[in-house]
Amino acid sequence: MALRHIALFRWSEDVTPAQIARVEEALGRLPGLISELDGYSFGRDLGIGADTYDFAVVADVADEDAFAAYRDHPEHQAALGIIRPLLADRAAVQFSTS
Amino acid sequence: MALRHIALFRWSEDVTPAQIARVEEALGRLPGLISELDGYSFGRDLGIGADTYDFAVVADVADEDAFAAYRDHPEHQAALGIIRPLLADRAAVQFSTS
Repeated sequence: MALRHIALFRWSEDVTPAQIARVEEALGRLPGLISELDGYSFGRDLGIGADTYDFAVVADVADEDAFAAYRDHPEHQAALGIIRPLLADRAAVQFSTS
Repeated sequence: MALRHIALFRWSEDVTPAQIARVEEALGRLPGLISELDGYSFGRDLGIGADTYDFAVVADVADEDAFAAYRDHPEHQAALGIIRPLLADRAAVQFSTS
């Protein structure tokens, strides 16, 4: 099997584009730092759907051990330290893709 | 660019495994019926994370026109007709993956 982790974020009302750019910068470094990431994509909502969240992260890993390695990696934790203060809401799922 | 559409579902308390299986059956047919789908994955939450939703769908398409074709396709609308009565909550994002 492979495992896909999804996290959707809704930013607090006072979050600025510069703060979101800082999130993107932190997330953009992770594929080069966390070898367990087989695939990684993230981005701002395009504003084309109804009642959407503001930002998405999709991480593809081999299995639950690789997911734990990603989740607990110090650089991922550092990114979460940037993200968490900006959050109004978060939605997540981990599911098997094979 | 390419576009990634994500929808996360939280089921109502009284939803049964058989109803979820019916959702999976309906979604599983879509890649063979909707040519705009370049990639399609979905599945039940694995129960390994905190405070997760119950189910995820990820659709990869070329652009906004392809997303609209998927969204409005009769077979997708039929699947939504199965899903919507089961929902307690839904979270979605469309973002650019390139």
